[in-house]
Amino acid sequence: MDLGPLEEQLGHHFHNRDLLKLALSHASIGAASNERLEFLGDRVLGLIVAERLHADFPDEPEGGLAVRLNALVRGEACAQAGEAAGLAPYLIMASSESGSGGRRKSAILAGACEAVIAAVYLDGGLEAARGFVLR
Amino acid sequence: MDLGPLEEQLGHHFHNRDLLKLALSHASIGAASNERLEFLGDRVLGLIVAERLHADFPDEPEGGLAVRLNALVRGEACAQAGEAAGLAPYLIMASSESGSGGRRKSAILAGACEAVIAAVYLDGGLEAARGFVLR
Repeated sequence: MDLGPLEEQLGHHFHNRDLLKLALSHASIGAASNERLEFLGDRVLGLIVAERLHADFPDEPEGGLAVRLNALVRGEACAQAGEAAGLAPYLIMASSESGSGGRRKSAILAGACEAVIAAVYLDGGLEAARGFVLR
Repeated sequence: MDLGPLEEQLGHHFHNRDLLKLALSHASIGAASNERLEFLGDRVLGLIVAERLHADFPDEPEGGLAVRLNALVRGEACAQAGEAAGLAPYLIMASSESGSGGRRKSAILAGACEAVIAAVYLDGGLEAARGFVLR
């Protein structure tokens, strides 16, 4: 599948498109999948959101910042972001998974979204990832 | 207290030394303290460690990376890092806290260490924070 239109939607053109393909690869394909990128992307997302909250709410105590952060990075929010980013048709998964509605599953979309964040980060640095996350 | 020797130890010279002072300020002083920076520093640390593990252990599944990360960023490890960084004498705290051994308390040292990571990050960017954390 041509990833060009997805790159347009993501606002980042990859130097290394293999990173983007890996980020879109669900564990059901049995080969290299996006779980390691999801692990990294979770931390990239956490930093970007924490930094933004820290700057935007200068009078909010730590506890309030933590509540806001948890609301923004919870799975459902990530799944919606993955949906909005148009990831679903590009997900690479086993036909059994795809046939049972895998492209609409929250956990799969959320994981892919975090993996894409990591891919953008590894490919373009924190500034590129920030641009994607904050859009 | 002259913060110059501490900056030497940290390997970062601050453009804005108020950030470093804030990072060293324990909640017992009642004024602006380091808890908001600790919130941010926790995420800066998480990203830097996750990124390093992701690069250093290319064959480790996500679960193994998570175990390694949790071992490295747990409170006791951060407290030891704060101790090793020589933060204790520079901590700004109420005399009651200091008098009851506050400079040796794990939670206080760990919090200050995370806050200093955030201060280095805000002052010098991710590269500067990476340099401090990975030393």
